[in-house]
Amino acid sequence: MTESLSLAQVGSSFELTGDEAHHLARVRRAPVGAAIEALDGKGYSAILTITDIHKQGRDGWIIYCAVTRIQQHPRPRPRLEIWAAPPKGDRLPQMVEQLSQAGACAFVPLETVRGVAEAGDNKLDRLRRITRESIKQCGRPWEMEVTASASLQSALTHDAITYVADSSGTKPQIPANASTVRVLVGPEGGFTSEELAMLDASGTQRVGLGPHIMRTETAAVAAAILFRLA
Amino acid sequence: MTESLSLAQVGSSFELTGDEAHHLARVRRAPVGAAIEALDGKGYSAILTITDIHKQGRDGWIIYCAVTRIQQHPRPRPRLEIWAAPPKGDRLPQMVEQLSQAGACAFVPLETVRGVAEAGDNKLDRLRRITRESIKQCGRPWEMEVTASASLQSALTHDAITYVADSSGTKPQIPANASTVRVLVGPEGGFTSEELAMLDASGTQRVGLGPHIMRTETAAVAAAILFRLA
Repeated sequence: MTESLSLAQVGSSFELTGDEAHHLARVRRAPVGAAIEALDGKGYSAILTITDIHKQGRDGWIIYCAVTRIQQHPRPRPRLEIWAAPPKGDRLPQMVEQLSQAGACAFVPLETVRGVAEAGDNKLDRLRRITRESIKQCGRPWEMEVTASASLQSALTHDAITYVADSSGTKPQIPANASTVRVLVGPEGGFTSEELAMLDASGTQRVGLGPHIMRTETAAVAAAILFRLA
Repeated sequence: MTESLSLAQVGSSFELTGDEAHHLARVRRAPVGAAIEALDGKGYSAILTITDIHKQGRDGWIIYCAVTRIQQHPRPRPRLEIWAAPPKGDRLPQMVEQLSQAGACAFVPLETVRGVAEAGDNKLDRLRRITRESIKQCGRPWEMEVTASASLQSALTHDAITYVADSSGTKPQIPANASTVRVLVGPEGGFTSEELAMLDASGTQRVGLGPHIMRTETAAVAAAILFRLA
């Protein structure tokens, strides 16, 4: 749902419109009286009870609900950012969907020397639609952020503990008090030796994700899973 | 490559044909004298030096090589089996490719009450082609096995330590001497309560893969990554 639940209160009424209402009315055929779970992707979840369903125009619906229960969820900590070189074609949206399920807090399309795909505005819009749609599937109270493309240089700030996925790396050790953890994943063909030298010089830790060479999208998902559960 | 390297010896000659030869000759344009790495998926890797390249018919090639180095790799231990309900459409082949990269030893299509897709012979053939092709991409000396479909009942043998991916589960603890580790992943919608009761009764351990609900293919890959690195 695109509406924020932050202003809703138990007992108040709430209107669902758009895709969400259409899905409930037409696909799930939810009746008046049904209880539904709603997530706004901004930290709030609610249990809503349908009080009325109105058709509006050819395919539009308004579903009136009463807020039965509302809950605010803290942001996940540490903030887990996956900075990965975008793979080509459908591998990028699939990766973003999997990152959302694995619990990454942000995906940053990483500009690299050997990178083959760019993430322009249209592509970013599509990726953000995917993360938004995945909220419900995942049961995520906080939506995964998809940022604009960023350079390798810009990853090397001091407000995050930064790792780079590399076959020479070992299992990650994350300090207990880390507020932001950032994992860099290179393109097919890997980072260049100059890029790796820059990362080494900045103190970025190399982390291994398994015994085999992985495609970018698998490595990104592996990093999200390992660091989320570490 | 489909030929086994197990009978090759350093100094002996070796012929590459089929797709492998075509790829080297036409796509990579490898010249005589070039050194290439070969993996047979059956535990052997070799460094081959190209001694001659012959065109055969319209698109066929024979590449003659000398075996420069040969190495036998032990099977990975524990044997990691992922028994997962096949997802629909392209999600199945993508999952199999990712499982191969993540280091699973075998994928078993799991028959479940809520399962939506079956893995017939044609589908299995395609999946096996994918695991074969991924050997090179992954640098895997041992090919991932894709077995025929199997029932949940048949997963509950005593020769493996068996886990089931479930949101109520905790981080896995694997005994150091485990020879086979088996992870069961349910279909969209999950196992039925009867299936879960059967698993509980058999002593199967529930294991959590992260804070969010995952699609089958993401859960399967997450399980492979966690257990391979555990």
